[in-house]
Amino acid sequence: MLPIDAFDQYFVSRLSENIAELIDLVKQPSVSAQNFGLEACAMLVYQMFVRRGFTVELIKTPGAPVVIAEKKGRSDKTLLFYNHYDVQPAEPLELWQTPPFDPVLRDDVLYGRGVSDDKGHFVNRLFALDAFMDLEGELPCNVKFVLEGEEEVGSPNLPAFMEKYHHRIKADACIWEFGDVDHRGAPLQELGVRGLLYVELAVTTANQDVHSGMGGSIFPNAAWRLVWALNSLKTPDERVRIPGFYDAVRSPSQKDAALMETLPDIADEYQTRYGIKGFIKGLRGGKELRIAEVLEPSATICGLTAGYQGPGSKTIVPARACAKMDFRLVPDQNPQEILLKLRKHLDAEGFDDVEIVSHGMIPPARTDSDHPFVRMVVDAARDVYPLPMVITPSTGGSGPNYLFVRYLDLPIVCMGFGHPGAQIHSPNENLRLDLYRKSAMHLVRLMKIFAG
Amino acid sequence: MLPIDAFDQYFVSRLSENIAELIDLVKQPSVSAQNFGLEACAMLVYQMFVRRGFTVELIKTPGAPVVIAEKKGRSDKTLLFYNHYDVQPAEPLELWQTPPFDPVLRDDVLYGRGVSDDKGHFVNRLFALDAFMDLEGELPCNVKFVLEGEEEVGSPNLPAFMEKYHHRIKADACIWEFGDVDHRGAPLQELGVRGLLYVELAVTTANQDVHSGMGGSIFPNAAWRLVWALNSLKTPDERVRIPGFYDAVRSPSQKDAALMETLPDIADEYQTRYGIKGFIKGLRGGKELRIAEVLEPSATICGLTAGYQGPGSKTIVPARACAKMDFRLVPDQNPQEILLKLRKHLDAEGFDDVEIVSHGMIPPARTDSDHPFVRMVVDAARDVYPLPMVITPSTGGSGPNYLFVRYLDLPIVCMGFGHPGAQIHSPNENLRLDLYRKSAMHLVRLMKIFAG
Repeated sequence: MLPIDAFDQYFVSRLSENIAELIDLVKQPSVSAQNFGLEACAMLVYQMFVRRGFTVELIKTPGAPVVIAEKKGRSDKTLLFYNHYDVQPAEPLELWQTPPFDPVLRDDVLYGRGVSDDKGHFVNRLFALDAFMDLEGELPCNVKFVLEGEEEVGSPNLPAFMEKYHHRIKADACIWEFGDVDHRGAPLQELGVRGLLYVELAVTTANQDVHSGMGGSIFPNAAWRLVWALNSLKTPDERVRIPGFYDAVRSPSQKDAALMETLPDIADEYQTRYGIKGFIKGLRGGKELRIAEVLEPSATICGLTAGYQGPGSKTIVPARACAKMDFRLVPDQNPQEILLKLRKHLDAEGFDDVEIVSHGMIPPARTDSDHPFVRMVVDAARDVYPLPMVITPSTGGSGPNYLFVRYLDLPIVCMGFGHPGAQIHSPNENLRLDLYRKSAMHLVRLMKIFAG
Repeated sequence: MLPIDAFDQYFVSRLSENIAELIDLVKQPSVSAQNFGLEACAMLVYQMFVRRGFTVELIKTPGAPVVIAEKKGRSDKTLLFYNHYDVQPAEPLELWQTPPFDPVLRDDVLYGRGVSDDKGHFVNRLFALDAFMDLEGELPCNVKFVLEGEEEVGSPNLPAFMEKYHHRIKADACIWEFGDVDHRGAPLQELGVRGLLYVELAVTTANQDVHSGMGGSIFPNAAWRLVWALNSLKTPDERVRIPGFYDAVRSPSQKDAALMETLPDIADEYQTRYGIKGFIKGLRGGKELRIAEVLEPSATICGLTAGYQGPGSKTIVPARACAKMDFRLVPDQNPQEILLKLRKHLDAEGFDDVEIVSHGMIPPARTDSDHPFVRMVVDAARDVYPLPMVITPSTGGSGPNYLFVRYLDLPIVCMGFGHPGAQIHSPNENLRLDLYRKSAMHLVRLMKIFAG
């Protein structure tokens, strides 16, 4: 085996070649929300694996195909990568400084839709594998990939795929689609995701809006019904009133709390960046804010719509009112159960006129911070980054991690080159070459330790 | 004086000439909400008075000019007409069967924006006056007109106009801009209007929407703040919680209740036409529904807006949320006082983060149903309409009647040819020629009685 320096050199000398491959992939738009370019992009991914001698298969789903690929390595350990080849819509196009699907390199930063989320992370992982093949002639361990094309629309076909194909992607550990450094440059390890229940609550009281001079005092008003129904869900002190909502919540363990204690205080950063006057629930910062942010469940109104919303005044009783809401859930809350409890609560409170449409359910998932694989990832980062890896028990966001935990029973970690200014999901999404190289350096170190 | 038959004949033989004059007026768009064509339309009105030998003046305001006109008659009694020459926007244009500003007559119905509200009512009144001039050579009483050009945007400059010019329009009685027959063809007399306070409530919690995975559990949420603030204003049993809101409310008098008793039950009509399942406050119909509709105050959410309102899901904490609300007020509630009470209530309930923008204030106003002039109007209708005039103490809507009551201390009545299918403020606004003639017949009868 070659010394690690040879790999670090490789990531300098072969960088432009690898980035050229990424640029080709980004040039093929693959916007799942617009069902645009997905099959063509899946074929590109397929060919990238074929070129590298992987066993690869393109598996049809009712939506975009899933690509699975594998290649044997020296040890009998198997590492699984979860990535996705679809991207967010590029709109609003006018805010891009260069075309989203024609990547441009400026001052060692590559700009384009998907250069970070998630095509860049996929190609970065191939970069590390290429280094092993080119320098050592083999992979240190078995490697499997699963790439879906619908991550950005909530992975609607991944549950059925996992149910049917999970035996094809069995592994000892999984590296998730992304990873980040924080605003100080310290790599982050987020060992879980919150669950999500996304619903639309809708009330219809009439077949048309009615003049408020006539209906104001006697007609049911969809907007009032919605306001009262929403009010019944959470009190102004932020306590969710749905009976049983908190039943399954596991309080943060001592270990979780200890991990949160190691994080920098984020209160000032949030207040300045988002122009907020303070936090809810009497939070002021420190560990408590960090814990509340990601380890407690939430009930969020994401949108409200009813009646007249233009300038000035229009005097109507709205016939229809809707709210979009998400519930972020923590172990061991179950989105399906929360949905049933929500329905039951609304009925019990007299709001059986409020319809519920579900727009998605994802259970929470976690990886134990004491898992040996997590320690390997932290150790592997040590001589790559200026600061040690920061471990948190969970991110506040959500993703289909639970499927991998449920079917494959393996640890899931984050590794990558995301950074606070990467603009993922936004115009001018970008990739910093320095962090891109570090990410590949981190991965080869991890694979060497993991392979044993 | 000629027998009344001669007038009725006149309204048949000269109808097309009068309608031609109305068509010319409608062809001049005068949309106050879009500040379009107002001065040109005021000039047309001015010339219509000049042609008839009226003393007329076009009075400038910070907005559209007010036209006042007068002409002496035989008796020393003076009748005042309040009308407006502005119209509602014609949009949505695609729903008109013929162009809104190019009136078309089909099956004895004239279609066009303003043919009913309110250019048609103005020209209809001129039709009656023309009959007197042509048939008797003089008006039976003094006549004054005041026409404003901003009624459809809440008459913002009428208070200052009335303050300065009320002595110019002194009269013994006033005929308001409109009048209607009900679904059975019975003429309606609505002897008052409710007051109005229109406000926008707005909450801003951050400088941008924030990802709910990050902010859901820790950031203030503008939509939740708004929901809780609104909820504090009215309970689900429809009781307004603003302290003092009901203090000045005069309960319906026995006389009011007796008038409501004479009205037909409207419950089935409303339930069928608007597709509602029932009424609020346990109302089922009859007198109670009629009283609640127009003689009780209301607090209506007219619109809600916050965050994401498109298809599917977007997981954000909205930075801003707004509600439009109207409060319909009854004697002796005062909109200015209600606004102060609203502010005080929100502050007391912990919602000092909710901004209030006022979009208009109109006090309620009433005319006594026992006033001799009201009896004249009812008597004059007797041999014109198949059913006797139905008197209600108030309509549920609002208008600047209070200015005329306050400055001129005169009775205000409704007379006109509106009908349930007239589509005022909507596409295909129309005027039925049969009702148009009846309205003129009604007016000549009233003027004969009034002149004495």
